[in-house]
Amino acid sequence: MTATPVCVLGLGLIGGSLLRAAAAAGRPVFGYNRSIDGVQAATADGFDASADIDATLTRAAETGALIVIAVPVPALPTMLAHIAERAPDNPLTDVISVKAAVLDAVADAGLLARYVGGHPMAGTAYSGWAAGDGRLFVGAPWVVSVDDHVDPHAWAQVMQLALDCGSFVVPARSDEHDAAAAAISHLPHLTAEAMAITASDVPLAFALAAGSFRDGTRVAATAPDLVRAMCETNSAELLPLLDRAIELLTAARHSLADRGSVGELVEHGHAARTRYDSFTRPDVVGIAIGEENWRDELAAAGRAGWVIRSALPGPDSR
Amino acid sequence: MTATPVCVLGLGLIGGSLLRAAAAAGRPVFGYNRSIDGVQAATADGFDASADIDATLTRAAETGALIVIAVPVPALPTMLAHIAERAPDNPLTDVISVKAAVLDAVADAGLLARYVGGHPMAGTAYSGWAAGDGRLFVGAPWVVSVDDHVDPHAWAQVMQLALDCGSFVVPARSDEHDAAAAAISHLPHLTAEAMAITASDVPLAFALAAGSFRDGTRVAATAPDLVRAMCETNSAELLPLLDRAIELLTAARHSLADRGSVGELVEHGHAARTRYDSFTRPDVVGIAIGEENWRDELAAAGRAGWVIRSALPGPDSR
Repeated sequence: MTATPVCVLGLGLIGGSLLRAAAAAGRPVFGYNRSIDGVQAATADGFDASADIDATLTRAAETGALIVIAVPVPALPTMLAHIAERAPDNPLTDVISVKAAVLDAVADAGLLARYVGGHPMAGTAYSGWAAGDGRLFVGAPWVVSVDDHVDPHAWAQVMQLALDCGSFVVPARSDEHDAAAAAISHLPHLTAEAMAITASDVPLAFALAAGSFRDGTRVAATAPDLVRAMCETNSAELLPLLDRAIELLTAARHSLADRGSVGELVEHGHAARTRYDSFTRPDVVGIAIGEENWRDELAAAGRAGWVIRSALPGPDSR
Repeated sequence: MTATPVCVLGLGLIGGSLLRAAAAAGRPVFGYNRSIDGVQAATADGFDASADIDATLTRAAETGALIVIAVPVPALPTMLAHIAERAPDNPLTDVISVKAAVLDAVADAGLLARYVGGHPMAGTAYSGWAAGDGRLFVGAPWVVSVDDHVDPHAWAQVMQLALDCGSFVVPARSDEHDAAAAAISHLPHLTAEAMAITASDVPLAFALAAGSFRDGTRVAATAPDLVRAMCETNSAELLPLLDRAIELLTAARHSLADRGSVGELVEHGHAARTRYDSFTRPDVVGIAIGEENWRDELAAAGRAGWVIRSALPGPDSR
């Protein structure tokens, strides 16, 4: 395979890190950012960036670039309209932390044919070009969606980009991704917010706060708009898990008040965390991209914890 | 001041780390552990340890050692009975993570006169002698209680031990400590357990879990008996905070379901975490241990975030 150019739309923490990582992997890469400040910062660091969306997308269309949408959710519809106008046939992915809502917006824009959803499970509490890091994705899971519509050529390109950035690929359906993301990211964000608020009302609490509080509330330092965007666009999956967490805490509350025990919650929580610590990620083997039932087979493999660490054979393999 | 010997009762994670830290600071130090395995491990590492509680306490009485109780809560009454029999006049402290319950037990044992509660705010998810680390307390807050009864001589000795171990001292009343510990440690432990359980029921969740989940559930790896002991012995302070957290999450749940917004929780949580990040700890100045109202003044200073980084003048200062 020749190295397909990469066109990154949005040069914040994730997009900016991706631009750096793809360049470091030797990929031709160029980017767009709405604010001129981000463009200037990226350019000053030696990268190829522009604040002209139409020129950027025209260039993507001419070079057959893989387009990566890395803008916040509220900016997505406008961005998709631009892409539909200037580069409707390019392979297209995104790095947004919810997948079903993006899939719907892409379908509404008529861009489903070459779209493969993506989500690198990496981040920090910071944002903007300056916070980016070309090694942000190293060793992190990167979800690549295997919904029914996905095209094998586009899928292979998104897989390769994730591998080039140092991630391993977890194949998953968009709805299953969103339920998992609600459990491991969106719900923990909300509980961290609640912990921070609860402690802030107690005299002496911040004076004594150490490791468990700092770690447990770290994600509450994330910009509120980002937390809201991911929770609010994933409410269908988040609500039942939020209910479950409230139910567990309420049961523990009654058990503590009535019988002086939090044993049930603590024993089950410890057992769950122990299962997580012993969770292994074997390599996906024996599946070729584009063969019969490849999407279902990859979804099943991802669900079972299998990951892709080196490129699977596919439609463009020699 | 001459260096008072230190007698550590219980050589698990905290007691074992304390034995190492005090020895590294040049203090004469000896320890007791119930299990012979812990004694052998400590002895093999070059420390002075015994499984004979009566001999250890007799030695403490003869040398005027500062006795540090580092056993789990369930073992406390038996340990206090031994101390009352063999070393009732020694200065006495503890490193247990709740303070009011220990204070009551110490009073019941008739040992209040020389007792000053302590709590180093440091730990890991591991336990036992082998998990100990002489640098565990470096840079961590160490609460030293300033309840109405405390004796200035004993207080100065406990302060010095905390400083010798590399901690800074936060003076606090036992009840205020317990409310703060519920907010920053006990409640975060319970929410971490709930997060781990919730995620464990969602296919794909562990496969995608990354930084925010790992950090947010780290404390769920703590041994269940330790989590239960600290939560269950502090239920009076923990219950209202657990109620508050449930209330915050329930309000967010309804706001998300009814209006598609988690804005209120997220904005307040971010603001609280930002206040925590900007929290500073100025040095206590101008208070001498034992002067009029010294306990109230230290409690007020601790509540305001002030800490002790070098020994305050006191009754034994030259």
